[in-house]
Amino acid sequence: MVTEAPQKTENQTELWQQLAAQLRIDSIRCTTAAGSGHPTSAMSAADLMSVLLASHLKYDFDQPEHPNNDSLIFSKGHACPLLYAAYKAAGAITDEELLTLRQFGSRIEGHPTPDIPWVEAATGSLGQGLSIGVGDAICAKYLDKLPYRVWVILGDSEMAEGSIWEGFNTASHYNLNNLIAIVDVNRLGQRGETNLGWHTEIYAARARAFGWNAIEIDGHNIEEIERAYQTAENSDKPTAIIARTEKGHGAALTANKEGWHGKAMKPEEAEAAIAELGGRNDLLIKVNRPQDMQRGGGAGEVGDGKLPQYEIGEKVATRQAYGDALKAIGGMDADVVVLDAEVSNSTFAEVFGKAYPERFFEMYIAEQQLVGTAVGLQHRKKKPFCSTFAAFFARAYDQIRMAAISQADIKLCGSHAGVSIGEDGPSQMALEDLSMFRSVFGSTVLYPSDGPSTAALVHAMKDLPGIVFMRSTREKTPVLYGPDEQFPVGGSKTVRGGNEDVATVIGAGITLHEAVKASDQLQGENISIRVIDLYSVKPIDTETLQRAVNETGHLIVVEDHWRQGGLGEAVLAALAESGTSVPSFTHLAVTEMPTSGKPNELLDAAGISASHIVAAVKAAR
Amino acid sequence: MVTEAPQKTENQTELWQQLAAQLRIDSIRCTTAAGSGHPTSAMSAADLMSVLLASHLKYDFDQPEHPNNDSLIFSKGHACPLLYAAYKAAGAITDEELLTLRQFGSRIEGHPTPDIPWVEAATGSLGQGLSIGVGDAICAKYLDKLPYRVWVILGDSEMAEGSIWEGFNTASHYNLNNLIAIVDVNRLGQRGETNLGWHTEIYAARARAFGWNAIEIDGHNIEEIERAYQTAENSDKPTAIIARTEKGHGAALTANKEGWHGKAMKPEEAEAAIAELGGRNDLLIKVNRPQDMQRGGGAGEVGDGKLPQYEIGEKVATRQAYGDALKAIGGMDADVVVLDAEVSNSTFAEVFGKAYPERFFEMYIAEQQLVGTAVGLQHRKKKPFCSTFAAFFARAYDQIRMAAISQADIKLCGSHAGVSIGEDGPSQMALEDLSMFRSVFGSTVLYPSDGPSTAALVHAMKDLPGIVFMRSTREKTPVLYGPDEQFPVGGSKTVRGGNEDVATVIGAGITLHEAVKASDQLQGENISIRVIDLYSVKPIDTETLQRAVNETGHLIVVEDHWRQGGLGEAVLAALAESGTSVPSFTHLAVTEMPTSGKPNELLDAAGISASHIVAAVKAAR
Repeated sequence: MVTEAPQKTENQTELWQQLAAQLRIDSIRCTTAAGSGHPTSAMSAADLMSVLLASHLKYDFDQPEHPNNDSLIFSKGHACPLLYAAYKAAGAITDEELLTLRQFGSRIEGHPTPDIPWVEAATGSLGQGLSIGVGDAICAKYLDKLPYRVWVILGDSEMAEGSIWEGFNTASHYNLNNLIAIVDVNRLGQRGETNLGWHTEIYAARARAFGWNAIEIDGHNIEEIERAYQTAENSDKPTAIIARTEKGHGAALTANKEGWHGKAMKPEEAEAAIAELGGRNDLLIKVNRPQDMQRGGGAGEVGDGKLPQYEIGEKVATRQAYGDALKAIGGMDADVVVLDAEVSNSTFAEVFGKAYPERFFEMYIAEQQLVGTAVGLQHRKKKPFCSTFAAFFARAYDQIRMAAISQADIKLCGSHAGVSIGEDGPSQMALEDLSMFRSVFGSTVLYPSDGPSTAALVHAMKDLPGIVFMRSTREKTPVLYGPDEQFPVGGSKTVRGGNEDVATVIGAGITLHEAVKASDQLQGENISIRVIDLYSVKPIDTETLQRAVNETGHLIVVEDHWRQGGLGEAVLAALAESGTSVPSFTHLAVTEMPTSGKPNELLDAAGISASHIVAAVKAAR
Repeated sequence: MVTEAPQKTENQTELWQQLAAQLRIDSIRCTTAAGSGHPTSAMSAADLMSVLLASHLKYDFDQPEHPNNDSLIFSKGHACPLLYAAYKAAGAITDEELLTLRQFGSRIEGHPTPDIPWVEAATGSLGQGLSIGVGDAICAKYLDKLPYRVWVILGDSEMAEGSIWEGFNTASHYNLNNLIAIVDVNRLGQRGETNLGWHTEIYAARARAFGWNAIEIDGHNIEEIERAYQTAENSDKPTAIIARTEKGHGAALTANKEGWHGKAMKPEEAEAAIAELGGRNDLLIKVNRPQDMQRGGGAGEVGDGKLPQYEIGEKVATRQAYGDALKAIGGMDADVVVLDAEVSNSTFAEVFGKAYPERFFEMYIAEQQLVGTAVGLQHRKKKPFCSTFAAFFARAYDQIRMAAISQADIKLCGSHAGVSIGEDGPSQMALEDLSMFRSVFGSTVLYPSDGPSTAALVHAMKDLPGIVFMRSTREKTPVLYGPDEQFPVGGSKTVRGGNEDVATVIGAGITLHEAVKASDQLQGENISIRVIDLYSVKPIDTETLQRAVNETGHLIVVEDHWRQGGLGEAVLAALAESGTSVPSFTHLAVTEMPTSGKPNELLDAAGISASHIVAAVKAAR
């Protein structure tokens, strides 16, 4: 029987307790039905969720895109039966759908994903929810100027992840008093006690040292929870509520018992536990609706910005063109927001930062937070561009992988790619970034060679969906293309060649210029080669590659990247998929650990300079 | 003129100051000679280094492998001119070599690497030094039982990296009072002031909240530095020395000035600064030698352990075989040490942990620290095996990339790979791990399909150099191989096939079993296919692949991984490199975002199950 509970009742405490019992029961029911899942991790946080859902969250389940909705980010994703039980209590899903948990074809998955419209970000890789919440909270406070709050429910185990402390640090730096972290300290991790057990005072001390309010409570005491939420809502700082709880609370079988992580109760166990909890209930809660306020700051187009122009032959680093183009698109679209990890004078994101300081956010050297903030911002309809050295995006690879599962639209630019950076040495050289980003679901990977192509592709990135990566180059390179050239994503440019080509050299970025040099040198010996600028690495221009095989026979791919996963394998895979057999293939890539040196010395030592291309062409003929 | 300074002098303070001036001067000289580099980041920490080198560090530069040497980890790697100047002052390198900084062919690189024998780990990706030091300190305290200390010199900018706080947390958990972090708070990052500026009290509060001693000092006051080091050496906890310093200290041109990050002085600027610092000096310091104590705990072989045995047809998960084999090799070699990120009951590392608890270290959910600890341990001649879900190694990709530059020998096992994990959904499914690990310099990538091959390969991993990754599977799979089968790294197994094969199916792990099923089904239709177990993904058995192309024409690669960077591209690249043209190639891989479901449902939905292989064979003929 469905009972619609009044929002305010004479006995509010009783409602909260009834709802908490229902959330526990439904967490048990759906996991037992599934035969797997994490009921006990759900049960520990049920009281925290009950008070939040019934009395504090402001959310319109009919309009998940409502700009005034609070964010509810369930960082301890494995405990999602609780989240789904809350959706049921809010009337957003039916009991029938709840019971499809973990079944093939159901959106009620083992960890939350945005296939469910009220899930703003996928969780399940622990320690990521807070960094995303920081993005939402920055948006509310500094961009949209809206009063929504960001609630992040965390587990205690994930407090060992460094990304959590990047989130704490960034939240206090930006004084995000609209951000509330609820830490469910149920003491038990997957395989035993957590690092800090029930030492809530240590968690609280850490939060305070990171500039937050911290409130220690008994996470099963409804009144303490209510007071903590009220305090947090009126705080002038971000607030962490450190709630001591019992894993599996509410059932004698599981309460504070080891061996119950990630384990569903058997049907008879579930039946007993449900009885112990007072029996099945179907309270329906009217969740508070958000206010109806417009986004501040002005969305949409803000001017008639023009992309930067460069003269053919002029030397400009693609990283500089990235910054110039960012500024230009910032003038076209007020939703463009730029983040950088304390290297904006190297990535040239500072060009945007100086033009639009109110839309530029310094993330300091915290690449995981850099990506997390972007995921939060894009959920709020911004178009975030993030930059750091390409090598350091490796620091956030798990966040990037998860952003793809979150169906996030984020734009990342990695500068200083490859051995051509020179003297700084291998720690600063991205040599795996193309591989890393190609292997992200639904990603786009761009690697322009000159100013105009960079500017055009930055403009394209603005409205591309998914994870979009651009690789930029430290060194200045000559402008190859005129102002009217188009650079469709998925395209390529044939920059040298004719009917007599004896081989095709495929490069991108710095190596394209080496290929052009090689072509010029070979032309002096009356040897004509085709040179392809593979600026779009994913998607890739298979048709042009096929034509090159058919017309020139020999393919030579040259890249400033390890042999694995970059241009070479992208070309081979595209041709194999299209059924084109490659009669002759030469792969010039980095195969030994590079050192310090001048860019040209290092390109040569790696075997990817013009002279090596010339030799490869001659050997291939 | 070279003056050998006495180790103890009547005026110790004067020596420290002279040495500090020399370290600053040499940092200026070598960067000016190079025309690039980070002199000012070196100058801020020169007093800290001077007192450390002259009076506290115990290190035998003639024996960098000496087990009693202190560790000196220079986490703020960009400031390495200071480290190199210290090497010169210690007599380890000449002034001439110092001046080869950043030149091609010199080991005195832009960031430190172990091409220099006294550099234990490459740095330059910030925030990693402390986690490595934790590994050394764990080794000293719990394994080798040696009194050496671990000194980690950090910059203030890198305190924003979450990995730092994983290190702080782990160090206090293991109460590493032999670990001393020296934080050079020079206030200025690359592009302006850091997040916390000179608020040393905030850094100190954070360190204390994470269970450390913290000492705030003036980092240019020699006496304060000396007292802090003495206190730290006698501490019962890990100690953080938070030193307020000036970037570029000692020269009016640069002291506490913006715009001087990563910038060498011009020759005339350098000349003036050197004069201001008292002029060039060539003090030679006798660094204190370490004690001569044997490693405790017993190194080398400890027994006549036997690898686990399984019956053909028996079902065992390769993750279980990983744990069984770890225990076995733990009985063969006392240097095997095992680390896990709080999932040892899933990765089965707990089998080792129960057998050898003194060599098992729980890293909790902190994957960056997991890898950092391993890098420190292997420097101390241990053979560290790390495990977590394969998906979560993405969290430590930057650490893994850097470990390759550190020339580290570490063994990583990622479990729960691919869609075949089932109900937990995509956040827990590694679908990019093979790509990620193939793109690491000098890596080995193994992906066994059954118990015996897993056990044999775990045994091989123990003594393999470099970054070695094994992918294991959640589901139980039937044993395919007998007890005497050999699995050389770089090999493969042809598990089905004969003279009439119409196609070759290449799989590994879970998909090999699908290929075997497909073969059995096709055999019923009198269609014979070859099935190759590509258990060694890198290095790869090119010869067997070439033979397959030549003898069967059609290649079908089937993998539980995204299309990019995995088995398919590895096969294509190997064949292309060997000059073998592939006439017909079919790639069955994961192309859509998976969901929850049963393993078989998900394998089928992804198009990588036996029925899809059967269809691909029929289509290819």
